Amino acid sequence: MSKKIDVAAVAPNIGTLYPPPFDEPCLSRERRKLGDAAGLTQFGANLLRLPPGAWSSQRHWQTESDEFVYVLSGEVTLVTDAGEEILRPGDCAGFKAGDPDGHCLQNRTDRDATVLEVGTRIATDGAHYSDIDMVSPPGGKPVPYTRRDGTPYPNLGRRSRPA
Amino acid sequence: MSKKIDVAAVAPNIGTLYPPPFDEPCLSRERRKLGDAAGLTQFGANLLRLPPGAWSSQRHWQTESDEFVYVLSGEVTLVTDAGEEILRPGDCAGFKAGDPDGHCLQNRTDRDATVLEVGTRIATDGAHYSDIDMVSPPGGKPVPYTRRDGTPYPNLGRRSRPA
Repeated sequence: MSKKIDVAAVAPNIGTLYPPPFDEPCLSRERRKLGDAAGLTQFGANLLRLPPGAWSSQRHWQTESDEFVYVLSGEVTLVTDAGEEILRPGDCAGFKAGDPDGHCLQNRTDRDATVLEVGTRIATDGAHYSDIDMVSPPGGKPVPYTRRDGTPYPNLGRRSRPA
Repeated sequence: MSKKIDVAAVAPNIGTLYPPPFDEPCLSRERRKLGDAAGLTQFGANLLRLPPGAWSSQRHWQTESDEFVYVLSGEVTLVTDAGEEILRPGDCAGFKAGDPDGHCLQNRTDRDATVLEVGTRIATDGAHYSDIDMVSPPGGKPVPYTRRDGTPYPNLGRRSRPA
């Protein structure tokens, strides 16, 4: 049995669970869960493809999980409290759990960008969104997303618009 | 403050703590701890450079930590119980904690290979070495490496021979 992951055989998750209108910049985002394909459970290791215009996420920070991104191809704009930085192949960044400096990657170019993204899997993890009235409560329960005051957003499931 | 990691400023760890003669294929191995540079603690995310002839490690499996490797440049041979497989840029593999199928990456070519490697940080993690009489006990204590019968190997510290 091959130990090499058959990347082409890993079906991508396209789009996002974000409620509208926050789903808009992530509708064409593609994520292949490579670590899962190898049976890993302690962290996610995903191949992220961002078509032109797509964002990795809304700007956010995780409460309990460390995150790391490494650009493989194309060019993305990293947005944080520090401002905007261009990341090209070989560039990388890490986001410590609990650091309230939200981040996201935006593809503002006219060609695809690919990024390897890693994040620890912690059951009680949640997320705060820096620029919008949205929170992901611990463990994504009782619903994946609420307003900051705890009011649930409707859970419409995955929404996508392939590039 | 830039969130982008200054990869060039991250000094590499060169070589290995393995006792001789097991250190030999890893003496020129270079590892840049990118995740650490960003203050991450839950997993290591390392840029591994393997000069011609170098191995990522002796063939081993971790008792408690998941591992993932993604080839960035060059070509490496992945050695496991399944045999040998060539991994090229874009190829990847994962190794589930506790799966007793040892693995290592060997650069058998005449040019450098680079690999992004990720592994969960678990304090009580240990390692078993498939092809040699060596074990890394839980937490690397009381010494980093012993024989399978528990006899400690001398701890000679880091040994290197830059390429």
